[in-house]
Amino acid sequence: MTKTVTVIPGDGIGPEVTREALETVDALGLDLRFDLLDHVNADTYLRTGVSLSDEDFGRVKASDAVLFGAIGDPRVKTSDYGRGVLLRLRFELDLFVNHRPATLLHEDLSPLRDARAGAIDCVIVRENTEGLYADIGGVLRENTEHETAVDADVSTYMGVSRVMEYAYSIARRGVCMVDKSNAVRHGGKIWQRVFKKAASRNPIIRSTHLYVDTAAMKLISDPSQFDVIVTNNSYGDILSDLAAVLAGGLGNAGSANINPVTGFGLYEPVHGSAPDIAGRGIGNPFGAILSYALMLENFGWTAEASALRRAVGTAISERRVTADLGGSLGTKEVGEAVRSALSAR
Amino acid sequence: MTKTVTVIPGDGIGPEVTREALETVDALGLDLRFDLLDHVNADTYLRTGVSLSDEDFGRVKASDAVLFGAIGDPRVKTSDYGRGVLLRLRFELDLFVNHRPATLLHEDLSPLRDARAGAIDCVIVRENTEGLYADIGGVLRENTEHETAVDADVSTYMGVSRVMEYAYSIARRGVCMVDKSNAVRHGGKIWQRVFKKAASRNPIIRSTHLYVDTAAMKLISDPSQFDVIVTNNSYGDILSDLAAVLAGGLGNAGSANINPVTGFGLYEPVHGSAPDIAGRGIGNPFGAILSYALMLENFGWTAEASALRRAVGTAISERRVTADLGGSLGTKEVGEAVRSALSAR
Ligand SMILES: CC(C)[C@H](C(=O)O)[C@@H](O)C(=O)O
Ligand SMILES: CC(C)[C@H](C(=O)O)[C@@H](O)C(=O)O
Repeated sequence: MTKTVTVIPGDGIGPEVTREALETVDALGLDLRFDLLDHVNADTYLRTGVSLSDEDFGRVKASDAVLFGAIGDPRVKTSDYGRGVLLRLRFELDLFVNHRPATLLHEDLSPLRDARAGAIDCVIVRENTEGLYADIGGVLRENTEHETAVDADVSTYMGVSRVMEYAYSIARRGVCMVDKSNAVRHGGKIWQRVFKKAASRNPIIRSTHLYVDTAAMKLISDPSQFDVIVTNNSYGDILSDLAAVLAGGLGNAGSANINPVTGFGLYEPVHGSAPDIAGRGIGNPFGAILSYALMLENFGWTAEASALRRAVGTAISERRVTADLGGSLGTKEVGEAVRSALSAR
Repeated sequence: MTKTVTVIPGDGIGPEVTREALETVDALGLDLRFDLLDHVNADTYLRTGVSLSDEDFGRVKASDAVLFGAIGDPRVKTSDYGRGVLLRLRFELDLFVNHRPATLLHEDLSPLRDARAGAIDCVIVRENTEGLYADIGGVLRENTEHETAVDADVSTYMGVSRVMEYAYSIARRGVCMVDKSNAVRHGGKIWQRVFKKAASRNPIIRSTHLYVDTAAMKLISDPSQFDVIVTNNSYGDILSDLAAVLAGGLGNAGSANINPVTGFGLYEPVHGSAPDIAGRGIGNPFGAILSYALMLENFGWTAEASALRRAVGTAISERRVTADLGGSLGTKEVGEAVRSALSAR
């Protein structure tokens, strides 16, 4: 059955890496139809004040997935634009899992002294629809010296349960639940309670718990201990970027924002729009390609997803990479390297 | 003038490292009087249910500073104990600055591939009395499948201003303010507003801003860019531990919880009680010694504080260190190494 995929290339290096990743996925000859929304970007926002129109939202919703390039532009000074696109889609489509794999594809890529390839091979499962991102809160005595602001960190049993269930469903060796229940007590109790239930329902999986400060340290000092890390929206934001850097840098990191119940997903490289290098054709396309691999996997095309990942690994071993990985190739040439590895399989 | 210092050795390796650090400070011959509260520990809590009695709190309050070993014991299953000692002192004595230096004393200690000694030399200034630690919040429908929990992340103009002022007061090269104002908007606005004012009042200091996820990454990929990082309670908790690991591990990390207005401080090694190695005399005393150096500095004994730090550096260069740093010495022998370096000066 044909899968329809909305494509939002967005800003900065978004369009460049998206083009390359799409061409690479095309080479697999799968039954995919693309609906291009290339007007969703900062230019449009600056002209109209609209981040994502209801019509465009409708087109996204009618499709099976959305592929994102990057959203962000130095000319836009408000966070409303980014929130209006990315967070709107996460919340309104109820994409409650942010799935962020961190796999070291080649030991040269690690900033750590004693990293062996494979020493980092984990997935951060980040709750994606509540916590501090609920946008509930307000200010008293705004713009005075007596201003007080409150942002609510909201946790629900339902919300924590469904993301915990997802974490256990993908775990191979273990689940490490990360919270700060020794200080942030109310939400902490829900996370602890749900975690204990899930752990006892999954006796074969090794269940462990760390406070977020310790988890950040252990990611550096002993990353190989982790398989799946499950945590809230805010800690997940931090730990997933941390893990990405340890696994070779943001340029290689892909992500999936998914609703495992409806099957809908938003797939996005993690690097952002990188305005400093935009337009020069030197952005690293691996993040986009690996994000699209996550999409293929969720569509059930697991062999093709693995092939994509292996092809990226081959390009890295051959050092056919962009400058952020120590190479000198452009986006297009790296894309070609991946496609030639794909056709050689 | 004699300074009176309350000493709370606490649990686990707390008493061992405290003893060694006190003996080391004693060797400096300063006008210090120690008031030992060695009954504030998990044994007492388990027997009486009291973390820190009002009488003990009064003794702490009447002194000029408190030296902490570590609080924490595997037999205590509730967070009330730790909160009742450490967080009570932080909040009731209004110790609004958590000052956490991260300095790489020897390049062998870094987990990073290309760390040069000195590549990490920064201070994390963590707001210590508000944010998610305010303990404001509650639950609805507790212990049901409809439970909802809220923890308030509270930011006040007063609270942010005073910690910002402290950050600028200690900055040598730059201040990097870290928040998540692109997603957590209400408190984010206060942090942004206070930061911009402080930056314009301090034109000679380089003022920069990072979102917390990016800050965590930059600490790994480019730590030398940082001088002072100022951030909220929760991000400070995470980033300061991260920085400690990058600078050679928790065992070497000291901290000061201070109220720069009253001058009162609580000084504490960061490593915690480490129950797995407690009682064997192998805990690393550097964290405690470096914490006490922070106390001496705040008392105005800056030459002595520097001497202590240099002596620790000497012990590290001579590899007279504990197992966590790759050595084989015990707590006592490492303390002796530091004291012999001190007397050689
Ligand atoms: C024990 C815990 C509540 C505490 C904190 O998070 O403040 C600790 O991690 C610290 O950083 O001093
Ligand atoms: C842009 C920002 C709001 C976003 C987030 O924090 O969720 C980003 O950092 C991410 O992780 O996708």
